Amino acid sequence: MKIIGVLTSGGDSAGMNAAIRAVVRTALTYNLSVFGIKRGYEGLIEDDILEMDYDSVSGILSRGGTILYSARSKEFLKPEGRKKAIKNVRRRGIDGLVVIGGDGSFQGAHKLYEEYGIPLVGIPGTIDNDIGGTEYTIGYDTACNIALEALDKIRDTAQSHGRVFLVEVMGKHAGYIALETGIASGAEVILIPEVTTDVDAVARKLSGGIKKGWRSAIVVVAEGDDAGGAFKISKKLKEKIGRDIWVTILGHIQRGGVPSAVDRINASRLGVAAVDMLVSGQTDIMVGIVSGRVVSTSLSKTWTQKKGVDADLIRIAKLLSS
Amino acid sequence: MKIIGVLTSGGDSAGMNAAIRAVVRTALTYNLSVFGIKRGYEGLIEDDILEMDYDSVSGILSRGGTILYSARSKEFLKPEGRKKAIKNVRRRGIDGLVVIGGDGSFQGAHKLYEEYGIPLVGIPGTIDNDIGGTEYTIGYDTACNIALEALDKIRDTAQSHGRVFLVEVMGKHAGYIALETGIASGAEVILIPEVTTDVDAVARKLSGGIKKGWRSAIVVVAEGDDAGGAFKISKKLKEKIGRDIWVTILGHIQRGGVPSAVDRINASRLGVAAVDMLVSGQTDIMVGIVSGRVVSTSLSKTWTQKKGVDADLIRIAKLLSS
Amino acid sequence: MKIIGVLTSGGDSAGMNAAIRAVVRTALTYNLSVFGIKRGYEGLIEDDILEMDYDSVSGILSRGGTILYSARSKEFLKPEGRKKAIKNVRRRGIDGLVVIGGDGSFQGAHKLYEEYGIPLVGIPGTIDNDIGGTEYTIGYDTACNIALEALDKIRDTAQSHGRVFLVEVMGKHAGYIALETGIASGAEVILIPEVTTDVDAVARKLSGGIKKGWRSAIVVVAEGDDAGGAFKISKKLKEKIGRDIWVTILGHIQRGGVPSAVDRINASRLGVAAVDMLVSGQTDIMVGIVSGRVVSTSLSKTWTQKKGVDADLIRIAKLLSS
Amino acid sequence: MKIIGVLTSGGDSAGMNAAIRAVVRTALTYNLSVFGIKRGYEGLIEDDILEMDYDSVSGILSRGGTILYSARSKEFLKPEGRKKAIKNVRRRGIDGLVVIGGDGSFQGAHKLYEEYGIPLVGIPGTIDNDIGGTEYTIGYDTACNIALEALDKIRDTAQSHGRVFLVEVMGKHAGYIALETGIASGAEVILIPEVTTDVDAVARKLSGGIKKGWRSAIVVVAEGDDAGGAFKISKKLKEKIGRDIWVTILGHIQRGGVPSAVDRINASRLGVAAVDMLVSGQTDIMVGIVSGRVVSTSLSKTWTQKKGVDADLIRIAKLLSS
Repeated sequence: MKIIGVLTSGGDSAGMNAAIRAVVRTALTYNLSVFGIKRGYEGLIEDDILEMDYDSVSGILSRGGTILYSARSKEFLKPEGRKKAIKNVRRRGIDGLVVIGGDGSFQGAHKLYEEYGIPLVGIPGTIDNDIGGTEYTIGYDTACNIALEALDKIRDTAQSHGRVFLVEVMGKHAGYIALETGIASGAEVILIPEVTTDVDAVARKLSGGIKKGWRSAIVVVAEGDDAGGAFKISKKLKEKIGRDIWVTILGHIQRGGVPSAVDRINASRLGVAAVDMLVSGQTDIMVGIVSGRVVSTSLSKTWTQKKGVDADLIRIAKLLSS
Repeated sequence: MKIIGVLTSGGDSAGMNAAIRAVVRTALTYNLSVFGIKRGYEGLIEDDILEMDYDSVSGILSRGGTILYSARSKEFLKPEGRKKAIKNVRRRGIDGLVVIGGDGSFQGAHKLYEEYGIPLVGIPGTIDNDIGGTEYTIGYDTACNIALEALDKIRDTAQSHGRVFLVEVMGKHAGYIALETGIASGAEVILIPEVTTDVDAVARKLSGGIKKGWRSAIVVVAEGDDAGGAFKISKKLKEKIGRDIWVTILGHIQRGGVPSAVDRINASRLGVAAVDMLVSGQTDIMVGIVSGRVVSTSLSKTWTQKKGVDADLIRIAKLLSS
Repeated sequence: MKIIGVLTSGGDSAGMNAAIRAVVRTALTYNLSVFGIKRGYEGLIEDDILEMDYDSVSGILSRGGTILYSARSKEFLKPEGRKKAIKNVRRRGIDGLVVIGGDGSFQGAHKLYEEYGIPLVGIPGTIDNDIGGTEYTIGYDTACNIALEALDKIRDTAQSHGRVFLVEVMGKHAGYIALETGIASGAEVILIPEVTTDVDAVARKLSGGIKKGWRSAIVVVAEGDDAGGAFKISKKLKEKIGRDIWVTILGHIQRGGVPSAVDRINASRLGVAAVDMLVSGQTDIMVGIVSGRVVSTSLSKTWTQKKGVDADLIRIAKLLSS
Repeated sequence: MKIIGVLTSGGDSAGMNAAIRAVVRTALTYNLSVFGIKRGYEGLIEDDILEMDYDSVSGILSRGGTILYSARSKEFLKPEGRKKAIKNVRRRGIDGLVVIGGDGSFQGAHKLYEEYGIPLVGIPGTIDNDIGGTEYTIGYDTACNIALEALDKIRDTAQSHGRVFLVEVMGKHAGYIALETGIASGAEVILIPEVTTDVDAVARKLSGGIKKGWRSAIVVVAEGDDAGGAFKISKKLKEKIGRDIWVTILGHIQRGGVPSAVDRINASRLGVAAVDMLVSGQTDIMVGIVSGRVVSTSLSKTWTQKKGVDADLIRIAKLLSS
């Protein structure tokens, strides 16, 4: 192995730069050359590729987003797209790829591996934390802290005005952010895709709480909740409890931002491990963190193995806000 | 003067607690008793009032919202409401009132003064900064910093993905937050109620910029912009420039939060000044800050005198992002 | 079991309030009464104890420090002190104790158990993360993020001026904060008690780096490093490399502050678990988190079992900054 | 005027990058070329100069420090140093200079003007706020907010443990940061160079307060206070009040960091104004902000005119914490 490439794909997340830095610098200690591929698979298809050195990744640990840029490539979903991509891989002499992204990105990587046998290792980079084979994904901790700060601010206003707020956090298919920030902020109700939402029960809890003397209440809802988006749920709730519900959708403030300590450390660990594994001949795997240690999983398990949410956390959420 | 009352009214804003603390402690040094009135004029009408001492306001400088709670009272808009309120004022022996709030709250205070002659002094508390007679309103600086942090985060994502974002900040009638945070974040376009919005021109600027090589663009829009809300504008822009526009509405995260240094200092100065003025016999005025000094203005000017936005800032906004 | 007591002891740490809240509310769901003991063991000795209810712990999740206050009690180290304490425990009818603190606090608790058989469960609360039987201690994550933010700021100045900084972070006996924040901030050198410090080697690395073109360098040192404190090391380094070293000692800003998401969640989990365990009849144990799950350990192991630092992290630290 | 140069000199401060950006982009709209001079006057002497364009200053608004680097040049203090500098100025064809820095930097600039008649305009960039002719200096607001956050954290610990803390903030010759953050954090005592410190009186206030029931107390001291540094004062206080005093020196965390809204806005305004003034033929002046408006002052007044501290703030500081 002489040359490796690294790309970030899918939604950006805080800490991706730490992973890129770790990949580049670890590769250099193995005397490998490193190519940075811009805009995920699109850059691979369009040969938007540049060589990186030690200094290319200086000063990026504290910066959100990804210096390699990211994208969701439609062309790469098709065999012709991947064919173009592999041509550039070969022409550039790239012997192995590190793909930083979420499950969609890993499905693409897996197909590329199946079709062309190119060695590749994935690193879980997504704020949603919904990847099998790892307890941690890059950006999740920062996203939780951002959402939590927002919830603290909303509580100030909710408490000052005696209001019920419904706050939608990210998570199209997973309730991790909602569950964690809901507990951490003391939300009165937490709605996640993994648990069937009973709007009547929510209304009863809110009405009961208000009767008991709650001055404010916050409902945290994951964007992918089965009862619909924040506006739909708030409309139903409003009718049932007979008072205004204030809605805030946190949206894209949750992706960027200065990465937290945990995100920088873990992204660094995973970046190092990804190169270690490529060099040692492994491929079609993702490196992740399980029980605090770096492990590897075959790529296909990252989207087929559902982690589910921790039943203990669901109990705690109820227990501490009832 | 032996007893004064203090209340917060209208939207909560960061720094109101610093003002309450200053009012209470300054009054105590004048050997006055201080009553805290809960939930603005509603508490005055419902006699939701408690005596406050030195320790009642300990440890609140760093906390968002208002410990006295706030509300927008519909009943107080009517003469009967104010009649109930003045009864409680008199029964409690309250000789003077400090009203912390925005222009709506000041209009209420002014009516109470006109009808019953009760001495009162206003303190400008609103994140919108749209009060005549003062360059500063409590909460504006914190709100700008919160919105700015959010815009920095959105830039990370916009830049990583090569996107155009439209971000709506607070300001129903005033563009101060939009203009200040737009300049501070390097927004490519800033839309405010004070300047007629030409969506075609915005589209041309964005298209031109993208042609020149802008990887991302951010349009900051005040919620009260004449071209409509963020969704309406984004729809029009999308058609004209032929690409997706990502919308984020910052919403209620802008009111609460840990108050900034400026907000704590200025709220403290205004709280002290309000009591000084009440004690010295002044009434029907607001204390504000002009050219860095505390001044007073007759209450009615606070909603009739429009400040307008600084033409210099509008020039700078254009000059630095074109 | 009808009544339990809860106290915080030793250095305060961010998230202790979340643990107190969880203990109180969980106990209430078991229909227990809960007494809050002020100032750790001192409050137990002096009977500074108050009953707590659901509302006593409202609104405290976002606040640093501990609402029960803390202390390091010298009297409790002596048998007479513990005798006074147990008298108050019995007079109040307290059937079980939850002790939130570090290893010193646990040693006191263990003695109390040995001498009087009182059921008690510990929760690891210390920013130092140096407790056996748990991978996590309350406040560690927040402390790391605070130190990291400080290091980012110092890097701005170091880079602007082309300086070498030596930054001392907390950790009298453990290098966790230094190692984690050193990696996360991209520190050029990290000095911890667990690894013998070779000042000559540090000087060589710095001189070599400066020769290679480093504009700035940051040395992160744990306060308990074997080579001495920051000033001592900086003096030696200065002589050896022949240029000024700028020293910053972060000090007590690392304990307080708004708790992070991880600290609020884990403190909540541990608070719930502590009450679960007390109720189920366990005693003389600490609840901790290992491999992401709540576990219990006998109290004596919490100070006899050394965790050691992760060799993998030490490798990463070197690999990414050489 | 065809070519201008811009440099940052003296201690770095948050917002300098916003000023550089404004200078560069404003100059470009005047069709000027802009050279960035690295490391302040040292770069001028050593011809460490590079041409800047629109993109050179993209993405820097949110970054602390200065992308042009800074230094305190000893050589520039001597006539020979300035002679070397002016040679490079002329060889490069630089027609005017923008100097961003503090009073030391302005004294150098003034000499260069006196000796060689080169047009130059200063911009006040220092966290200390101790420049005549302006109410605002770049970085002051960010530094105050950083120190304030640190003080909030220290209060958590002081309150939890019932301690007296002495916290030293920056300000060698001026007490602005100490006074502002002292008021904003509710410090019990504030010691600044502008007011003679009476350690006995401080001790009496602390002892009296503790007797009255203060659980914690914070003394904020400017580094240049007449009673000496934090350690000296704490030693004296300790003897007088008979209890431990905990010392924290905030140090260099106060210079860097993400600039606040105010710092980005005002730095932008001053950068634009500096170029406007150069182009309109003015020289040997500094642009500043007085009563909220951009004004100019002759350079020599910036270090001869002392501003003094606001007597009103000193009254407020005492009044609100006694």
